Amino acid sequence: MTMTHAPDGGRRRREREVLADAIALSRSALGVSTPNPPVGAVVLDTAGEVVGRGATEAPGGRHAEVVALDEAGERARGGTLVVTLEPCDHQGRTGPCSARALAAGVARVVYAVADPNPLASGGAQTLRRAGTDVARADDDEVAAAEQGPLRAWLHRQHSGRPYVTWKYAATLDGRVAAADGTSRWITGPDSRRHVHGRRQEIDVVVVGSGTFAADDPSLTARSDDGALTDRQPLRAVMGLAPVPPGAAVRGTDGRFRHLATRDPAEALAMLGDVQHVLVEGGPRLAGAFLSAGLVDEVEAYIAPLVLGGGRSAVEEAGVGTLTDAHGFEVRESATLGRDVYLRMTRRPA
Amino acid sequence: MTMTHAPDGGRRRREREVLADAIALSRSALGVSTPNPPVGAVVLDTAGEVVGRGATEAPGGRHAEVVALDEAGERARGGTLVVTLEPCDHQGRTGPCSARALAAGVARVVYAVADPNPLASGGAQTLRRAGTDVARADDDEVAAAEQGPLRAWLHRQHSGRPYVTWKYAATLDGRVAAADGTSRWITGPDSRRHVHGRRQEIDVVVVGSGTFAADDPSLTARSDDGALTDRQPLRAVMGLAPVPPGAAVRGTDGRFRHLATRDPAEALAMLGDVQHVLVEGGPRLAGAFLSAGLVDEVEAYIAPLVLGGGRSAVEEAGVGTLTDAHGFEVRESATLGRDVYLRMTRRPA
Ligand SMILES: NC(=O)c1ccc[n+]([C@@H]2O[C@H](COP(=O)([O-])OP(=O)(O)OC[C@H]3O[C@@H](n4cnc5c(N)ncnc54)[C@H](OP(=O)(O)O)[C@@H]3O)[C@@H](O)[C@H]2O)c1
Ligand SMILES: NC(=O)c1ccc[n+]([C@@H]2O[C@H](COP(=O)([O-])OP(=O)(O)OC[C@H]3O[C@@H](n4cnc5c(N)ncnc54)[C@H](OP(=O)(O)O)[C@@H]3O)[C@@H](O)[C@H]2O)c1
Repeated sequence: MTMTHAPDGGRRRREREVLADAIALSRSALGVSTPNPPVGAVVLDTAGEVVGRGATEAPGGRHAEVVALDEAGERARGGTLVVTLEPCDHQGRTGPCSARALAAGVARVVYAVADPNPLASGGAQTLRRAGTDVARADDDEVAAAEQGPLRAWLHRQHSGRPYVTWKYAATLDGRVAAADGTSRWITGPDSRRHVHGRRQEIDVVVVGSGTFAADDPSLTARSDDGALTDRQPLRAVMGLAPVPPGAAVRGTDGRFRHLATRDPAEALAMLGDVQHVLVEGGPRLAGAFLSAGLVDEVEAYIAPLVLGGGRSAVEEAGVGTLTDAHGFEVRESATLGRDVYLRMTRRPA
Repeated sequence: MTMTHAPDGGRRRREREVLADAIALSRSALGVSTPNPPVGAVVLDTAGEVVGRGATEAPGGRHAEVVALDEAGERARGGTLVVTLEPCDHQGRTGPCSARALAAGVARVVYAVADPNPLASGGAQTLRRAGTDVARADDDEVAAAEQGPLRAWLHRQHSGRPYVTWKYAATLDGRVAAADGTSRWITGPDSRRHVHGRRQEIDVVVVGSGTFAADDPSLTARSDDGALTDRQPLRAVMGLAPVPPGAAVRGTDGRFRHLATRDPAEALAMLGDVQHVLVEGGPRLAGAFLSAGLVDEVEAYIAPLVLGGGRSAVEEAGVGTLTDAHGFEVRESATLGRDVYLRMTRRPA
């Protein structure tokens, strides 16, 4: 058997590392870039050294490529731009990234995900026509980028509705409250810190009227000392019951929405052009989103506790028999203090 | 700060590796050695090479040390015996292991767990008196050995009752059956294979009358092709309802027990001198063992499915409010095909 070694094997290996870094970097744009995609970009100089890094800024701000190229300055000339999404080609508020890359004089562009947006796409072609060496990343890198921070935005591009994550915290026997209704706290401080981190990365947190009535939650993202973090999601209560003026969830920042419907699809439509919705329960709202086929991702925080009574994490999910169960695939698992965290995505039909 | 390097640092490092190997090896004695402890032993020659390995044989057979020393033969002379439990000193059916080690001429013995059994202990002292260099392993190695295959035997020595593992297979929302009662199969083939492996390592499998009535399970250990494995646990049904002659669980090998009681402590006593009992449900039996404080370990097989209805994994566990929940600590976690496996032990009070 003959092994073929591409002469640029070392370069590709380096670009793979750098693309993984760009994906990680793009996470900082989550919850910031909406409605634009959370992109990460890294610029290498001719020697393969990192000379610029960037993630998408808030709407009206710079795209990731521009942030990275600005940082690189003249060192970008002859170098390589590595980016999680194909550079845009349209004259938006910020000018096309393809033109910016040409102006910076990069010799090569490597991107993972092709832009699915007909208004923005074409950046790769424009660059190629101008003589830039443009390469698509390998399939496994593309898959990693598609499953990374871009996934909610891509989902919205393809389906026209936001990506929905259902999050819950339960005991081993799947309970979210004890027989007497107590539910604080099932999971420990590390899990709760993780939840607050996630709230900063999504666009809207939604709970049902029942959870609102039981817990009067604030649904804000807070740091350990209870202080609000810089980036706050929209807060929504879904259901027909009114949400009185004094409710904690209303707050004073105008970021509260009452979704006065029991139809999950209608509720999502009421939210407008958001990418990522986090449904934080309770059991009946979770059941309604699952029944409607509108849960794309599940985040489970499992506490090693047994209650043997009380509310289960999901009620009335439209399943009568085992073969009709809603199925997911585990994508990530971790220990958070005493608890176990699982992130899952919908199992392909 | 001064660092002290023991002159035998290399030797201790080697012995640590070898003790970890002996612990792993002792796993093969699980379900075989009862009522004797499942021990692992490794013999090193004067150059530190492995020349013998052994695990406890079935009652009447050889102890682990003897198996390893038999394999080593003359190469044991001047070498080291590494063993998970202090060598026994009493004249049982097989003669004391201390005397056997002296006869083999080993120069050094390293052991992890001190023998808690007053009849058997004293092996270390006998060896020392005869001029052998005897060392206890480091604290972390002792803890690993105590949490390893010896844990059920040690538990019985200290508490006078067997170690109880409660095993269940549930969905994310903690259901063990769908609304219509269907429960086969919640977990996938890798999880079921794992369960059959565990059944070979414990002494008794117990289910409640309800599970017996619902599923008519055989409770045998089987390989992938459905054939019975060599080593079979006792099979027990607990509850007052009769178990009719035709029931699958009765089998024809005389290894069936009907525990006609609703008192978990009484059921354990009825089982006699066993080390490890696996309670495989259902929800009410699990609740009864948890309420009685008789669950030492939990093995959870979690399928990434949601049912939103049907039976929960545990019912009536004697908990009214969250602060009274039964608490465990995660010791192992793994992916088994699509499922997640968690092994937990009781949280210290
Ligand atoms: N541990 C956790 O992860 C977690 C998370 C959240 C809640 N919880 C616990 O869950 C309990 C509350 O449970 P819950 O079931 O009452 O709360 P819920 O699911 O938050 O709210 C149920 C309410 O949502 C409204 N709703 C909107 N669309 C619906 C639909 N399609 N189907 C059904 N209802 C719909 C209905 O109110 P309207 O009449 O207003 O339409 C319904 O009464 C509390 O104990 C809370 O602490 C736990
Ligand atoms: N997925 C899993 O891991 C798993 C495992 C097992 C079962 N299951 C499912 O669980 C369901 C059966 O549930 P179940 O609750 O009826 O079964 P169970 O817990 O196996 O049996 C309950 C019966 O056990 C007897 N029992 C003995 N001691 C008891 C005590 N202290 N307290 C209460 N009962 C005691 C009682 O029968 P007597 O009247 O005879 O005393 C009682 O009716 C089936 O659908 C089965 O498929 C699932």
